[in-house]
Amino acid sequence: MNGRIWIDTPNGKVLGHGRIELLERIHASGSIRQAALQMKMSYKQAWELVKYINEHIGQPIVVSHRGGKGGGKAVVTEKGLDIIKQYRDLQQRFKEFLKEQASTISI
Amino acid sequence: MNGRIWIDTPNGKVLGHGRIELLERIHASGSIRQAALQMKMSYKQAWELVKYINEHIGQPIVVSHRGGKGGGKAVVTEKGLDIIKQYRDLQQRFKEFLKEQASTISI
Repeated sequence: MNGRIWIDTPNGKVLGHGRIELLERIHASGSIRQAALQMKMSYKQAWELVKYINEHIGQPIVVSHRGGKGGGKAVVTEKGLDIIKQYRDLQQRFKEFLKEQASTISI
Repeated sequence: MNGRIWIDTPNGKVLGHGRIELLERIHASGSIRQAALQMKMSYKQAWELVKYINEHIGQPIVVSHRGGKGGGKAVVTEKGLDIIKQYRDLQQRFKEFLKEQASTISI
């Protein structure tokens, strides 16, 4: 058994597996460009996802400072780190749920 | 919050939302062709999905009798009905899980 979960709003999906991974990679590298590269997406795509998340959460999740030598720097806010943690905890409970349920299924 | 679950094997996904719906529609209409029409897929697609499910479960889930006036007749086996029920029960527990978890998330 397997599955996926995501956090949505009436306007659509806000956070799922891929977006959380993007936030984590931005946090680790301090760079939207680096995170995009690691996830094989374009900088534009990553930047638009970040914009989308910031707007849907209603407060800044990633704050980015453009330009300068070596490119801009991006910081995941406290709120962003809290959301990552909540999602990871949720994911863990979901994994346990799937494991429990798998043992009840006989196909 | 929202999500999806499916039942998989090492060879890939066997049963998810769409395939269970197909089986239910075959059961209700007695016809793969009718079920396909209702789900806006081609007869060939539906027939191949049924074949895939039968092969992956390792025993017949849908038995179809070809041809005759008004087309062939398809029957969902006891095993198939049991699988539909298990999936629906699982889906119900998943819905409850999502509801519980949603109340713990604060974003």
